[in-house]
Parts: sequence; structure tokens; C-alpha cells
Amino acid sequence: MIASAGLWRLFQSHIDELQKRAERLLERENLELLAIHSGQQKRWFLDDMNYPFRANPHFKAWCPETQLPNAWVIVQSKTKPTLVLLAADDFWHTVKSVESEDWIRAFHVEHLKTPEAIETLLPYDKKHAAYIGEHIEVAKALGFDNINPDPVLHFFHYHRLFKTDYELACLEEANALAARGHIAAAEAFAEGASEFECLLSYMSETRQGQNEVPYGHIIGQNENASVLHHWQLATANKTPLRSMLVDAGAEVCGYAADISRTWSYEHNEYEELIAAIDQITLALIDKLKPGVSFPDLHRLAHEQIANLLFAFGFVRCSPEQMIEDGITTVFFPHGLGHPLGLQVHDVGAAQADERGTPIPSPKGQLTLRTTRTVEARQVYTIEPGIYFIEPLLNKLASSNKTHLINWKRVDEFRPYGGVRIEDNIVVYREKNDNLTRRTELKDFKLKVN
Amino acid sequence: MIASAGLWRLFQSHIDELQKRAERLLERENLELLAIHSGQQKRWFLDDMNYPFRANPHFKAWCPETQLPNAWVIVQSKTKPTLVLLAADDFWHTVKSVESEDWIRAFHVEHLKTPEAIETLLPYDKKHAAYIGEHIEVAKALGFDNINPDPVLHFFHYHRLFKTDYELACLEEANALAARGHIAAAEAFAEGASEFECLLSYMSETRQGQNEVPYGHIIGQNENASVLHHWQLATANKTPLRSMLVDAGAEVCGYAADISRTWSYEHNEYEELIAAIDQITLALIDKLKPGVSFPDLHRLAHEQIANLLFAFGFVRCSPEQMIEDGITTVFFPHGLGHPLGLQVHDVGAAQADERGTPIPSPKGQLTLRTTRTVEARQVYTIEPGIYFIEPLLNKLASSNKTHLINWKRVDEFRPYGGVRIEDNIVVYREKNDNLTRRTELKDFKLKVN
Ligand SMILES: [Mn+2]
Ligand SMILES: [Mn+2]
Ligand SMILES: [Mn+2]
Ligand SMILES: [Mn+2]
Ligand code: NI
Ligand code: NI
Repeated sequence: MIASAGLWRLFQSHIDELQKRAERLLERENLELLAIHSGQQKRWFLDDMNYPFRANPHFKAWCPETQLPNAWVIVQSKTKPTLVLLAADDFWHTVKSVESEDWIRAFHVEHLKTPEAIETLLPYDKKHAAYIGEHIEVAKALGFDNINPDPVLHFFHYHRLFKTDYELACLEEANALAARGHIAAAEAFAEGASEFECLLSYMSETRQGQNEVPYGHIIGQNENASVLHHWQLATANKTPLRSMLVDAGAEVCGYAADISRTWSYEHNEYEELIAAIDQITLALIDKLKPGVSFPDLHRLAHEQIANLLFAFGFVRCSPEQMIEDGITTVFFPHGLGHPLGLQVHDVGAAQADERGTPIPSPKGQLTLRTTRTVEARQVYTIEPGIYFIEPLLNKLASSNKTHLINWKRVDEFRPYGGVRIEDNIVVYREKNDNLTRRTELKDFKLKVN
Repeated sequence: MIASAGLWRLFQSHIDELQKRAERLLERENLELLAIHSGQQKRWFLDDMNYPFRANPHFKAWCPETQLPNAWVIVQSKTKPTLVLLAADDFWHTVKSVESEDWIRAFHVEHLKTPEAIETLLPYDKKHAAYIGEHIEVAKALGFDNINPDPVLHFFHYHRLFKTDYELACLEEANALAARGHIAAAEAFAEGASEFECLLSYMSETRQGQNEVPYGHIIGQNENASVLHHWQLATANKTPLRSMLVDAGAEVCGYAADISRTWSYEHNEYEELIAAIDQITLALIDKLKPGVSFPDLHRLAHEQIANLLFAFGFVRCSPEQMIEDGITTVFFPHGLGHPLGLQVHDVGAAQADERGTPIPSPKGQLTLRTTRTVEARQVYTIEPGIYFIEPLLNKLASSNKTHLINWKRVDEFRPYGGVRIEDNIVVYREKNDNLTRRTELKDFKLKVN
């Protein structure tokens, strides 16, 4: 958790809203209590070391401090939620103290001496209680029968799409922080730094470790920019250095930024390709509004990519035929975007209502997992891209569409890997708020040779 | 995996030794085949992101590349071991290619199109086959009845204590790398860097990320040096800056370095305390030899710490009484050391033989988990320390031993946190090889004010 003081004045209303939602759910499901478990440390196989702790996102929705294993939020009607903290005698580890935090006043606070002592804070008869968390064996040992009931999860997942002011403020701060990291990484790149060195510059600016961010830093130079999730960063310096795609975020009180930027090492046609994708990103954001179906927007993105493939001379056929023949999917093989929040690929992306009715992908859009119709107070990423991906290009070359491709032109761009530009957008009824372009990234121009 | 070319000339003998061990085991246990599973990616709860991948240590013993989920080593008598690699169509991720590596010639190599295809490489009748790995449900689905049998695990754990030349070379390289990281972190500290900035300096020098090291970097400044596993590094600069304890390693082909160093920001009495602990480390290493029981060495460490507590004026009673009364345990509450290898706290630490007969901790040595008698070709850490740990001191202050403590003197040192000096030692019949003091750390003196 890192946060500016301004956040906390919004926190109580956030908790009030969650409490209101929960009370409606409790009544509907004939429940009296929700016990939301943060989680437990997980051991490496046959070892005494743990994986980095990741809290249950349902816990994160209530509690801004995400590094609290063995903690609980207990929700009941007509009473403040209870935050249960483990206060074990542990001189081995740094134990996060949250007692003096501003936000804690939204809770009634209880302390446990051992993880098992949670039992004393739960009703003996658990017929009307539900456990929300990962540790089924813990829930069973405590006597829960209702463990992660589908109606409960669907309900919370659906409502999480609609952000409170506090949540929007967290996402805004996360964007500001990640933006500074992007600028630091870009400046290191302009000095010839390796992927790993650019990561260190990013971390140095954001002051978040590799396990404190919502997803692994993606930093790909040259051909590596074509690997959509390039997480194995190279430590060697590349010569000649040509390009860098950075897809990296930051986390504030559990809320994620998810920003992509792409940089050219020189003024050249690849730089023009980046500018063209940037324009497509902005054009698509312009179309993002309440009532628009995300699959329609994805289809529109393919049209724009098709136009670009034609304009840059990569493909010689009509945009309609390119889409029809699946050629745009070779160059743009991922989804246009996704909801953003407590998780980088936030929940509810394909859920029509609070009952969890699924919205299937339209035919031919298997790469898109966001199928919702956009509504106000939702937050989406918009992230079109164009890539020169070896295995996909090889498949295309040996298909009956190969004659439509200007392979010489494609080969010119392969050494640059690809381009992705990704912004984070709050949709309101009247306008969009582009959180990413409200940061220092807005006016930033990388000085290159 | 990172390794110098020199390593590979030792690798074939390493595999030959593992194969020899395995054949003896297979015969003893009436088995024909061992299927050693590297593991699978693990998902965060309700998410589509994974925890950092950690390979099964039994897989790591055979395969120097540790980032290969869904890989297998299959061991049978009188035939080369088979390395099974997943060659899935995955353009989303960087897929490590090991095909052209030198070491791969020690294996017969097979490729799978899907993880499930491993079935085709296993015998239909699995009565004489054993699964070694974390994923019980995978083993059961494949039809294994013998899943991680105790006699098999005990056998390998016991023999892993005795290192091959290849393993010693890996540990040596890991030490050299970690030593450079320690120097970089110390130099950043001398410039006034924060804990997090010192981490970045360490990473910059070792070029290993936070999930590529054998354990989380412990970097504690001032009072934080008293937290034995201080993993939540502070990003703020401390003023005045007084001290820094760094316990950090590196990994080479899956083998760990585990080095601790402590630094003073000024020339003062705390610097003398560091020098005194350094002398104790060296004196204890001098006593580490074949035939010595590790618990005896731990007892000796407590004597030395007791002498130091008296000499520095922290405690006013005889060293014998300090140990008797448990006072040394307040200032030195952890074990003296542990076996080191594929895991930072390596297996076999309390195992008398290949059948797994346990060696219990001697009375009063509950903090020591290494109970073995030392033998040649084993590798141990030696890591004495002295700490001013708030909760332990508070307990002592309210005990009937409080009059034995010079609290004014203790209070002078609390702001420095503590001291730990940890080396990695190979024990041979004739001599020890201090891997840590063969590095650049040997002659390194930090320039301070
Ligand atoms: Mn995204
Ligand atoms: Mn992204
Ligand atoms: Mn150690
Ligand atoms: Mn250590
Ligand atoms: Ni992925
Ligand atoms: Ni620990």
C-alpha cells in the first residue's frame, strides 16, 4: 500500500458502498455473515521458503493493505465490518503495523494470537455464514459449508466493474506512478540500457519491487518486442538497439495501472508506425462510451489495424478481406482491452449481470475475453498493437494467403518486434477520463538520435 | 541458469554420479523408473496471473535450467536419463530454448506438444514406477501409485549433502556473483542509499531479479538490521544512517549462495562489534571439520557470543551462566548455520542416513535445525550474529535476569539493529574451502566517514 493522504477522505464512502452491496446480497442469499480470508503464505515444494504473498482480491476490495496473510474481513448487516489481524509473536519478520493508519477507523478491529483463533470470532452455527477465500481446507476445518458460493462471487464480481470514487483515485495514483516508471525506462533505453537495466530504472522511479506490482514487468527490445508477455528480461546490451516495448504497471492500495508504451531508438519508419498505433489508440478511446459493446470496439480496432497494414504496405488487399481472411489477427493477435481494477485483468469482463450470466465471445473473436457492453464508472484498458511474431508469420507464409503479404516490407520491420500503446480509461456518462494521459507521459517526448 | 563455460566439463560426471545413485536406489526399492516432474505454473487465486515458477528441487538436481514448467527427467537403469521438454505453440511467452546448450548432451531429449502427452513416454503398468513432484493430482491422473515415496526422497536428500565437483563449481560461481552484489550494495549504503536503493545496486551488479535468487534479499538499515528476515525493504532514506545488514545470495544453475555482511556508516564501537562477529565467524569456520557435530559447533558459537557480550559490557555474568540462563539466545536467537546447495536451507540437515533416520535437536538447542555430524564434501553456512531485538529484549527486561543486563549499554546499540556475518564453506578431509572469502569480498574495505 502506498497512497496520498487525499485518498482516505474517500475511503469511508467506499466501505459504505461495499457494505450496502453486501447487505443486499446477504438478504438475497439468506446469509448473516461473510468471512473474507486474505489468504495464507504458500510454500515452495519441499522447501521452507514462500512464494510472494498475494491477497484474495475479495479481501483487497475492503482492505487497502495487501500484505496481511491470515487476516480476515467479517461482514454482517447493520454493523461496521470487522478487520481481523494476526498479532503473532514473530521477531523473524517485519510485521506490517496498520493500527495507526487513517483508514482503519472504517473497521472494528480484532486481533488474533494464532491463525486458528479466528474460530472464536465466528458463529458456532455456520448455516448462514459463507467463507470467501482460497483455503478450502481452512474453511472446512472451521465448519463452513458455504465456501465461495457462486452467487456471492458473481455478485461481487459484477459490482466491482463499477468503481467508487476511492477506487478511481487509487487507479489515478497508480497511473501517475507507472507513468514516471515508463519515462525512466525510456530514458535508460535512449542511453542504450539493456532490458534488465531498464527494469531497474523503472523500479528506481516507482519504488515498487517485482512482487509489488500487479503483473510482471514486460520489457522487450528489438525482436523481443514481438513477445506479448516478455517477462524473461535480457541482461545483455543489444547492438544495434532499435526498439523497446514496455508494458508495466504499478499498484496503489491494491489497484492496478496497466500501461504500454513503445519507443524507437532512431527517427525512422518504425517511429511512424508507433505514431500510427498511438493515433489508433486515441481514436478507439474516443469510441469507448456507455452503450458501446466491447466486441464492436474490438472489430473496429481490426478495421483500423487493417487500414494501417495497407497504408504501410504490409498487406495488399482490402481491409475487409484482411479481416475476413484473419490476416489482421496475425499482426494483432490479442484482445483490445479489459476491465481494470483490483486485478489487472479485472473480473466481470464477460458477465452480463450480478447472477453471472455469461456473455460469449462473438464468432471469430476468440482472442477477446471482454464481451461486455460499456457502462459509466467502468474502467477499461485500450491497447491496440501490431507485431511481427515469428511463429504466426511462418504460419501465414505457408498458407494460401501468403501472396497477399509484402514479405520484403514485413522483413524490414521484424527486427523491431512490434508496437503496443495502452491507456487506462474511466468511462463517464458525459466524457472519458484518460488516466494515463493525465500523467507526465502526456507531454513526454523521448530524445533520440 | 547462468554459468561459465568451464562448468560443463564437470556436468557429465555429475549426471553419472546421480545416475549411479539412482540405479542403486531403483534396485533397492524394486523400481524401474523415476519420473521427476519440474512442476507447473501456479495461479493467483481467482486470477489469470501466476506466481513466479519454482522448480521441484529433485528436478533441479538433474537439470541446470530451472525455468522449465511441465518438463520431466525420466530415470531408468542402464540408459541415459531422458529430459522431456514441452514444445507447445506459445507465441505469448518467451520460451527458453535449451536445445543448443552444451549440457543437454548428457540427456536423451524428448518433446511434448501438450503437458498431458507425457503419458506416451511412461510405461502403461506403473507398479514399478515412481512420481517425484508436487502435483499429486497429475501423478494420479497418469496412474501412479508410488507418489513421492519416503524411501526415495530420504535417499536423494541424504546423498545431496555430498556435492559433486560440478555442484561445488556452481556454488563457487554463485558466491562470486553474490559477493559483487554485496560490494555494490555496501557502496550504495556509504553514499546514503535507502534499503530499496541498495537492493537495486545489488541487482544491477548481479543481474538477477527478485524471483531469480534462492531467497528474498534481506537488507536492513538501522533498527531494521534486528529483523532476521527483513524482506519489506524501506524506500525512504534514513537519517541518521547508522548500519546495514545484507543477507543476500545469487543462483547459478539452481545452486545458491547465502552470504551475510554488515556495515557501519561510521568508525565507531558498532564497527568494532562487526569486527568481533567477523572474528567469531572465522574462528567457528576453523572448527568446522569432518567428525564435528554441528550442535557442538552451535554450542561453541554461544560460548563465543557470551564472551563478546561480556567483553562489550552488555551482560555482567560469567559466559557459562549466560548460556545456562538463556541470555545468549536473546542476542543470538537463530541457528549457527545449515547445509547449502539446491535449496538455501538444504535438505538432509537432520538426517542420519539414507533411510532418513532423524537426528533430534539436543536439549536447549531448539533454534538449531542442523543436527548432523559434518563430513567431507558437504557445504555449510556459518552465520553467527548479535541482535538487539525489541520483543526479545522486552521479555528479558521483565524476567528475573534483568539485573544481569547493562541496559544503558544495550540502549546505545539498539539503533544499529544487529550484526550477522555469514560465509559458505566446503568441508574437505584436509582443509576447508571458504567460497565466500575467495571472492572480491576478501580484501574489500568499505570507505566510510
Ligand atoms: Mn492490458
Ligand atoms: Mn498491459
Ligand atoms: Mn543462511
Ligand atoms: Mn543468510
Ligand atoms: Ni500470459
Ligand atoms: Ni522466515
